[in-house]
Amino acid sequence: MDIFIEPIGRLINQFSKLPGVGKKTAQRYAYKVIGMSEAEAREFAESIVNCKRKVKYCKVCGNFTEDEVCDICKRRQSSVICVVKEPKDVIAMEKLREFKGVYHVLHGVISPMDGIGPNDIRVKELLSRMDGNVTEVIMATNPDVEGEATAMYIAGLLKPLGINVTRLAHGIPVGGELEYTDEVTLSRALSERKSI
Amino acid sequence: MDIFIEPIGRLINQFSKLPGVGKKTAQRYAYKVIGMSEAEAREFAESIVNCKRKVKYCKVCGNFTEDEVCDICKRRQSSVICVVKEPKDVIAMEKLREFKGVYHVLHGVISPMDGIGPNDIRVKELLSRMDGNVTEVIMATNPDVEGEATAMYIAGLLKPLGINVTRLAHGIPVGGELEYTDEVTLSRALSERKSI
Repeated sequence: MDIFIEPIGRLINQFSKLPGVGKKTAQRYAYKVIGMSEAEAREFAESIVNCKRKVKYCKVCGNFTEDEVCDICKRRQSSVICVVKEPKDVIAMEKLREFKGVYHVLHGVISPMDGIGPNDIRVKELLSRMDGNVTEVIMATNPDVEGEATAMYIAGLLKPLGINVTRLAHGIPVGGELEYTDEVTLSRALSERKSI
Repeated sequence: MDIFIEPIGRLINQFSKLPGVGKKTAQRYAYKVIGMSEAEAREFAESIVNCKRKVKYCKVCGNFTEDEVCDICKRRQSSVICVVKEPKDVIAMEKLREFKGVYHVLHGVISPMDGIGPNDIRVKELLSRMDGNVTEVIMATNPDVEGEATAMYIAGLLKPLGINVTRLAHGIPVGGELEYTDEVTLSRALSERKSI
């Protein structure tokens, strides 16, 4: 006999597929579901299917959207495009409520080790957006090896078109401490020092 | 405009209801769902509804079951009943694969502060199981104030019936260190010392 009866065991398995969720956490989640009213459980389940079914990718920028084109692309006319790796990076940028340009989601970064080349991410789609109105492209891929390489590669394609390609600044995180800043970051902070 | 489009925001809200899940974790879970295939998402959703609908409480012991009576009550004839607070405590005990008796789930403990008296938990149901065949009742409620009080209360009801009422031992956790054992536990370990 299994310790868990089948419907509970199955739900625990499903919860275990979520990132960072082990058996123990999945159990707690399952107990929570059992403790819900039937209406609540149905609403929960429905929101999963609903989210999966309704969320598509914007055919212009690649961001999450319910329609063909996302709200940001629909509402903003901008000559500045911010290039990010994933749709969740758009959300990180949008939380600032500072950037008023549009986005381009690559859906990945160039990573030869994983066999991901420029044709496997949305580089062509980015180039096709260079219609003469775009003046600046901000490369906001992550500051890791793949992110940097991708930024350099795309910069190499865009610069000959006369587009100003920029990159998010590196440096000490605000509120961080010199002592605990890693050497690479500190060295970047030094070389990119600004006059005050 | 909200940062999240409606189906994603709704799913994040749902995930946030799980124990210990904040907005950030709920976001990660939602992204995971978006990355699933439609079949996977449907399976996930279905297992939630299925679990909620199929899991009932055993009418004998109060444990989780799909039928009227749980597998443990069906298969085991025992004169020993282990009394626990919640169905998940049955699972904790069963994982030992040592206890061969049956269970009784109280579905709560007596807690005057929360207005929970003996009639709000399954005490009557426990008494009705005292049919003359039960020789021992192990009180395995948690070792906190409510758990202890509940154990004492139930012991007071059962002892006059000539039933041997026992309680799980307190003491230093195996692998624990004296230095880091709290004083109450250490004092219990001392007073309940055994000859070796």
